[in-house]
Amino acid sequence: MTQRQNRGRQARQRERSVPPLVSIPFQTLRNPYAPFEILTANQVEEIHEASMRILEEIGMEFLDEETLAIWNSAGAIVDRESQRVRIERELVEDALKTVPSSFTLRARNPDRNVIIGGNHINFVTVASAPYYSDLESGRQPGSLETYEKMLRLAQVCNPIHVIEGMLLEPQDVPIAQRHLVKGYALYTLSDKAHLVASHGREITEDHVNMACIVFGGEAEIRREPVLSAVVNVNSPLRYDERMLGGLLTYARYRQPVVVTPFILAGAMSPVSLPAALAQQNAEALAGITLTQLVSPGTPVIYGGFATSIDMQTGSPSFGGPEGALALLAGAQLARFYGLPYRGSGGLNNSKTPDAQAAYETQMTLWPAVLAHTNLILHSAGWLEAGLVCSLEKFVLDVEGLAMMGRFLNGLEISDETLALEEIAEVGPGGNHFGTAYTMARFQDAFYRPTVSDRQNYQTWAENGEKDAFHRAHEVANQLLETYERPAIAPDVQGELMEYVEKRKQESTVSYF
Amino acid sequence: MTQRQNRGRQARQRERSVPPLVSIPFQTLRNPYAPFEILTANQVEEIHEASMRILEEIGMEFLDEETLAIWNSAGAIVDRESQRVRIERELVEDALKTVPSSFTLRARNPDRNVIIGGNHINFVTVASAPYYSDLESGRQPGSLETYEKMLRLAQVCNPIHVIEGMLLEPQDVPIAQRHLVKGYALYTLSDKAHLVASHGREITEDHVNMACIVFGGEAEIRREPVLSAVVNVNSPLRYDERMLGGLLTYARYRQPVVVTPFILAGAMSPVSLPAALAQQNAEALAGITLTQLVSPGTPVIYGGFATSIDMQTGSPSFGGPEGALALLAGAQLARFYGLPYRGSGGLNNSKTPDAQAAYETQMTLWPAVLAHTNLILHSAGWLEAGLVCSLEKFVLDVEGLAMMGRFLNGLEISDETLALEEIAEVGPGGNHFGTAYTMARFQDAFYRPTVSDRQNYQTWAENGEKDAFHRAHEVANQLLETYERPAIAPDVQGELMEYVEKRKQESTVSYF
Repeated sequence: MTQRQNRGRQARQRERSVPPLVSIPFQTLRNPYAPFEILTANQVEEIHEASMRILEEIGMEFLDEETLAIWNSAGAIVDRESQRVRIERELVEDALKTVPSSFTLRARNPDRNVIIGGNHINFVTVASAPYYSDLESGRQPGSLETYEKMLRLAQVCNPIHVIEGMLLEPQDVPIAQRHLVKGYALYTLSDKAHLVASHGREITEDHVNMACIVFGGEAEIRREPVLSAVVNVNSPLRYDERMLGGLLTYARYRQPVVVTPFILAGAMSPVSLPAALAQQNAEALAGITLTQLVSPGTPVIYGGFATSIDMQTGSPSFGGPEGALALLAGAQLARFYGLPYRGSGGLNNSKTPDAQAAYETQMTLWPAVLAHTNLILHSAGWLEAGLVCSLEKFVLDVEGLAMMGRFLNGLEISDETLALEEIAEVGPGGNHFGTAYTMARFQDAFYRPTVSDRQNYQTWAENGEKDAFHRAHEVANQLLETYERPAIAPDVQGELMEYVEKRKQESTVSYF
Repeated sequence: MTQRQNRGRQARQRERSVPPLVSIPFQTLRNPYAPFEILTANQVEEIHEASMRILEEIGMEFLDEETLAIWNSAGAIVDRESQRVRIERELVEDALKTVPSSFTLRARNPDRNVIIGGNHINFVTVASAPYYSDLESGRQPGSLETYEKMLRLAQVCNPIHVIEGMLLEPQDVPIAQRHLVKGYALYTLSDKAHLVASHGREITEDHVNMACIVFGGEAEIRREPVLSAVVNVNSPLRYDERMLGGLLTYARYRQPVVVTPFILAGAMSPVSLPAALAQQNAEALAGITLTQLVSPGTPVIYGGFATSIDMQTGSPSFGGPEGALALLAGAQLARFYGLPYRGSGGLNNSKTPDAQAAYETQMTLWPAVLAHTNLILHSAGWLEAGLVCSLEKFVLDVEGLAMMGRFLNGLEISDETLALEEIAEVGPGGNHFGTAYTMARFQDAFYRPTVSDRQNYQTWAENGEKDAFHRAHEVANQLLETYERPAIAPDVQGELMEYVEKRKQESTVSYF
């Protein structure tokens, strides 16, 4: 090899070491195509009607005195002893009238604000993984170090719109302090919009207080929301005190909760997807109604997270046809009520970022995008039924999200893109390499992958026969090298740190 | 472990060794949902108009004297010297009037007949791979042994509707004899419908003759087709003599060809997807028109196979957003003309059945299914940009196709599936394990995976930490063990063998 060839190769290698992913801009993403529908209008009505009967005739349990009092004042039929509440449909219908169909969730960096509703698509990281894994250091309990590493990676990857502040559980931080430590890291390592915990009144008050410090006070955060949080229902038909505490706190401050029943059909609902959907719908509408009773007009999101239980192993079935159908049906119900919708994007049961992890992820992501899901949780990093936040899976997923983003940009049909003159000029049997038309457009014409390998076999073999798992590991490290801490006003950071340090001493939180 | 526990474990292991895939029935598959559309009606018209101008003003080359004579008789403007033909749109419009929008492709076993058109979805194996690979024996040139192995696997897997007779090139068979040997294997090892080669007059006459032996003569195969074959265009804007020879032969015998321009935008078309689509449309319509000039009313399929060229490596980009968009747009054009549509399902650039292979495959399969693609080639086994037919990828893909089949079965909403009584009976906070409702339905309620692992981490680790590639290898062997050669009348088989042996001596075929 000549010196010149050698220098050329080195230049190409340096260029390769900056992953093309980095050059993808943060994009407000919309799905311009009609929402994909699997239910007829009549079927939607049938599920709706079944849900209304569940609310009216069966009722739900709310294990929280304050909540029971709210239902009671609103005119629901409350049995204080059993804590069961029966809710007439008029109460739900009235509540739905005040929910905004779309709203903006603000980020610390206004360029990272996201719109939730309509045909807006927002990709959110994995949430609530107790374990972290990567190729080098293996599967291990989440720690503050790995939590912060994943935060930095999420900050760098522009296809990620929103960071779930609970993406990974830092198990080396005392439980009472975790939400404070996570909150501080979220605001100082990232400037994207985020979701936080909704577990009980103390944690959520802390999150509100931290947000007030960062965004300039309570009036500011009330004006336009800056926090969101998933409120899970303890299906079947029960809200516990922790979740209700979070729901009430955030609703009072007009921060949007994501009311998400977690239903595995065959366990928490009858072994039938339509039943799971009717139950999910009843459960979600009950929580959504509650937010409006507390604070009419506060934004709220309808969450769907139904799938089946695997009857052979007793595990949840992620990334299969049941989850896909439930997600699409849930979106139709949310649209029926004019509500923003939350689904999931990267669910799978695999223990390693292999083909199964990838096809189950796509079997979740495609329906989510087709359904016009406004907030797609678990879009990156989810592995092993959600027990693991995987470094490499995160990167593989981000490549998938970037491709989906390009797909949603669609085709522009014009004289220039139809290029009849170019077709005529090259003519039959010719080729378009190196023509003026090609030279002027090839750089940006098509999606340029980062992890996906398009080398020929020989080159791939010479480079060590690396599969996508191994390449994703390298890319993760390259991406992390590009990380820059986003600026934050020193006084804000100081006040935030002071609050966190004070509350770390006082906190009585005993769960996460 | 007690003896009883041990016996229980052995029974479970035996049960596990028969993959659930085997119990999935051969299913006529339809996509009951509205076709997914990425172009407006106006955009479809714009592409159509551009295609008409290509045919009328630029024209195409047909490197075959007989074809030029046909165009000439039909009134096209033929330049004999340059072999270029300009085709007025009226000629195309007239031809489109006689093409059936739907037809049945017959299999040797009538239960395996497939309908091509409307919202019917048919999954076809990979085609034309020069190499075979599996986990144990690695990457190697295709051989008759591996060809027959893949045929048996394709016969066993019910989610596969149609076998591409060229799924793998048996390189150890002399070129002149390959099509004969493959034809004999196809008819004796499988009873599914199949596609065969379209390369030139001699090969295609042999395929017609073999079909006549198996299906009872020329009148029988003319009555309802029994063969189909892909005719590729040498894009840009050129049909060569081989492909035209095949097209003419099959059209005369009223067997449906799949007219498929193979376009990598940036090489065989301008570096723009709309241009690639306009060109594809012109090329496809030219071939389709030709079939109707030869034999009005003969079934024919519009094939789309456009994607971009990767500007970094010069390789085709498979499984990316460009291929997805082109596939969906192609389907809209085919629907615009009322033609059955062919796309692809498992395209990818990966060198191994890893996460990339899987996500690129899904990025192809989802658009194909959403588009109502009637014939989805390369749905199973495709690896390494189509150079490799992979045993494990085949099995992984079949799992994906089975899940897609379940997805297309959709939801049935009824009082029984909404199960309000069951929801009421279990009530808030209860669970549905072991209820009468569950016990009566759990066996068939949900998709049961074969390759996908839903064990917990501990069990998976104890079982050797096998990823999907390794598990697919085991499943492939289990599936092959269930293979049974389908019955064929001895006289038919005898006649077929006699024909093949005779022609093996005479064949002058020098290409494949």
